[in-house]
Amino acid sequence: MASRDGFSWTEKDGLKAGVPCIGAIQPPSNLTKTNEDTVYDVIVVGAGYCGLTAARDAAVAGLKVLLLEGRDRIGGRSWSSNIGGYPFEMGGTWVFWGQPNVWREIMRYQMQDELEITYDFSRGVNQYHIASTAGVQKLTHDEEDAIMDSGLRKLVNVDGAHGKKIMPFPHTANFSAEALRYDSMSVADRLAEMGHDALTPNERLGVESFVLLCSGGTLETTSFFEFLHWWALSAYSYEGCIEYLVKYKFRGGQSSFAIRFFREALATGNLTYAFDTPIAAVKNMASGVEVTSRAGKTFRARRMVSAMPLNVLNNVKFDPPLQAGRKAAADMGHVNQCVKVHAEVRNRDLRSYTGISYPHNGLFYAFGDGTTPSGNTHIVAFGGQHNHFEPDEDIEATKRHLQGCVPMDIERIVFHNWSKDEFAKGAWFFSKPGLLSKHLGDMRARQGNVFFASSDWALGWRSFIDGAIEEGTRAALAVRNDLAQGDQPARPKLV
Amino acid sequence: MASRDGFSWTEKDGLKAGVPCIGAIQPPSNLTKTNEDTVYDVIVVGAGYCGLTAARDAAVAGLKVLLLEGRDRIGGRSWSSNIGGYPFEMGGTWVFWGQPNVWREIMRYQMQDELEITYDFSRGVNQYHIASTAGVQKLTHDEEDAIMDSGLRKLVNVDGAHGKKIMPFPHTANFSAEALRYDSMSVADRLAEMGHDALTPNERLGVESFVLLCSGGTLETTSFFEFLHWWALSAYSYEGCIEYLVKYKFRGGQSSFAIRFFREALATGNLTYAFDTPIAAVKNMASGVEVTSRAGKTFRARRMVSAMPLNVLNNVKFDPPLQAGRKAAADMGHVNQCVKVHAEVRNRDLRSYTGISYPHNGLFYAFGDGTTPSGNTHIVAFGGQHNHFEPDEDIEATKRHLQGCVPMDIERIVFHNWSKDEFAKGAWFFSKPGLLSKHLGDMRARQGNVFFASSDWALGWRSFIDGAIEEGTRAALAVRNDLAQGDQPARPKLV
Repeated sequence: MASRDGFSWTEKDGLKAGVPCIGAIQPPSNLTKTNEDTVYDVIVVGAGYCGLTAARDAAVAGLKVLLLEGRDRIGGRSWSSNIGGYPFEMGGTWVFWGQPNVWREIMRYQMQDELEITYDFSRGVNQYHIASTAGVQKLTHDEEDAIMDSGLRKLVNVDGAHGKKIMPFPHTANFSAEALRYDSMSVADRLAEMGHDALTPNERLGVESFVLLCSGGTLETTSFFEFLHWWALSAYSYEGCIEYLVKYKFRGGQSSFAIRFFREALATGNLTYAFDTPIAAVKNMASGVEVTSRAGKTFRARRMVSAMPLNVLNNVKFDPPLQAGRKAAADMGHVNQCVKVHAEVRNRDLRSYTGISYPHNGLFYAFGDGTTPSGNTHIVAFGGQHNHFEPDEDIEATKRHLQGCVPMDIERIVFHNWSKDEFAKGAWFFSKPGLLSKHLGDMRARQGNVFFASSDWALGWRSFIDGAIEEGTRAALAVRNDLAQGDQPARPKLV
Repeated sequence: MASRDGFSWTEKDGLKAGVPCIGAIQPPSNLTKTNEDTVYDVIVVGAGYCGLTAARDAAVAGLKVLLLEGRDRIGGRSWSSNIGGYPFEMGGTWVFWGQPNVWREIMRYQMQDELEITYDFSRGVNQYHIASTAGVQKLTHDEEDAIMDSGLRKLVNVDGAHGKKIMPFPHTANFSAEALRYDSMSVADRLAEMGHDALTPNERLGVESFVLLCSGGTLETTSFFEFLHWWALSAYSYEGCIEYLVKYKFRGGQSSFAIRFFREALATGNLTYAFDTPIAAVKNMASGVEVTSRAGKTFRARRMVSAMPLNVLNNVKFDPPLQAGRKAAADMGHVNQCVKVHAEVRNRDLRSYTGISYPHNGLFYAFGDGTTPSGNTHIVAFGGQHNHFEPDEDIEATKRHLQGCVPMDIERIVFHNWSKDEFAKGAWFFSKPGLLSKHLGDMRARQGNVFFASSDWALGWRSFIDGAIEEGTRAALAVRNDLAQGDQPARPKLV
């Protein structure tokens, strides 16, 4: 199976659109003539983790579900390509047991032994390279940890307790005014407040590139509140960041996990689905919803779960229009324009490499992320809105940005251009200043018979697979509650 | 509502059995004449978190469920008494977002804002007291943290990486031989191996009492492997232990959480239940199961989930008998005979107290755990098999053990005697050496139409509410899969 999404490049084949993917679903639809006029209990729009979870939970609970997806595959912003049996993660990679929703699902599907630890600091160029405009410094990983730990602790220490006092309950929509104050501040503002000499030169390079790795924006467009939130969720430490953000990945790739949700939903017999079916319009009526595809087909249901990302809500014509607060949020959008590029390189000695190339390079964070079946090293590199480039438009430039991290002998390049993806318009959510404090509640609110669910406005691991599952879970339960209430007034609310 | 379980004492009323509890269910059964001959899809035996989760998940998925419970309340070994609107946690108290199964449910029920942080190091006797045979030392909490951090790191440092190398994937049934070697060792063996001078005198007192707080056994009966497992789950640090083990609790008590599972199951219309219905016998046949209560009533189902703790499996006559490995495990039993005693005291200045009283005292760990509605301080104290006593048999002795921690002016005492509880025969699971390495797989195995599920053999947070939910989740999915397979061979396996 293959998806239209993603790109790969080799010397021999040049740049090719589309890559093999076990998350591409065949047949692309199980719609038949006989279910054409079905009024579903719920239409779920979007087959990323949020939509998959909502569809699965609703189908398991006996609701008749229609799942509509614009792409030819499941996973949304998280999916893996399988090239020669090896998974390159196109977006969304690592998981950790401290991410409750994702780990619960891993245990539920008994996939706990299908994980691997992605780093290996044992050999070769077992170093942290700081490539800056002043040249390249080669440090040990212990030195890397010390720089990052010290620099980040200074950045977040707004309360004398490294964020523990100001954000003691990260999983809430009800933050203190003191905490929310930091949502009017960008990371650039916070750095300016700290003063030029607060960080050593290496701490500054490390901290700035790490923040940009998280946000995919620029220092000016990255909400300092949202960075504090990531920090709090990561147990208020750099060691925690490493554990929570880049520890375990699936040996078979993210799509080997996502497919379990889809299969379970399908096996209930309650799931109808159609891929390659982008939607154009939603009519939100007292009696239910009518969803019309771009191809002009109309589907009806009692309720709808919109599992589309914030940045594409404006793609769809809602009637009545989106509530003012949600519309304002969609107009603001999130700022993450991450450029994630995989390189399969012949340099086996780069397996233990980590490095930054900042502030001049297009890809500013890179590290050894595995060994391919042929024994090559897998390097993953990240850029973003800072020095943004389109990796598919100029593959020679992409190679130069990779070489700008560390010299490498490139055999293959694999990536997904999230910025040009019409169903995402960006990578994982990251807030600009003001968005969350003004509109988190608006984004989470129900509108008529449409329930809006997305990792983009999760309470816990917002932006993560975990947040997507959190939101899909919330939406499915809300729809069940709502249908139980509305149709059988004598029946108690479910929970 | 009140439960027969638990004890309270005041000067005025003396010792009384039974305490108010919102988890006591009225009416105690919804069995009727008309469902007397029902063949259920699944009978779940035990209404602790594991059984509640299994029953809820099965009922939501459309299975006809009968839930049988020997007690008059839900929650099993985790429940809270509500005395004057204030919850005393009788067993199972704290939760954390790093416990994936429990946190997923908290978010699912949108209870994230119903939590509070239990410690308050701000005033009065803001100290750590080490009461030993040599007298009482009064230290700061920073000194406490330093002693515990240093002592525990020495204890667990079997791999030069404080357990990270030897136990990199705590959520597995497949540990390395190197790790399993520590299951043949008790904590006493490990301390002997380290040598007498490896720990400072205060580190030894702190570490030994902390281990006994975790295991409820003695140093000789506590598996060092299992202690390493707790440590790994707690992010390999003492700071992690505090976060994971004693951070958040429910303002309304554990039973305010458990009741949500029960209510959701009930609202599906698929749940039949009977409290006050201990079971005597299980007949496990090719066609299904027959479960007979002590009162002689027989219930039939296609499958059964046994959610009874390890220590009481021998209470029930299984036909055919338990498989040899499980029987051997049940005969060994787990070692936790924790004695948990709450004292409501008039000393407001004890709110910030923590302390140990070891090795001479019956209650060897105690700390301020909240403020009651009347402004009194709530002290919780723990004992175990080490200097074991029965708090209900001699209330004057119980008071002496409390006073042995720190002098206090006691207004009320509340506790549950888990050792004399016929449905638990001990508190949370803790392994003696050899049990897990020999029998973890045996305890987890299915036998005919009976699925055995319990926090006692969870893979992750074994012994915890989290592990109970993990296991209930696993059991419900296994039953669904099994019924889907068996009855409709054309239907695909669910996951």
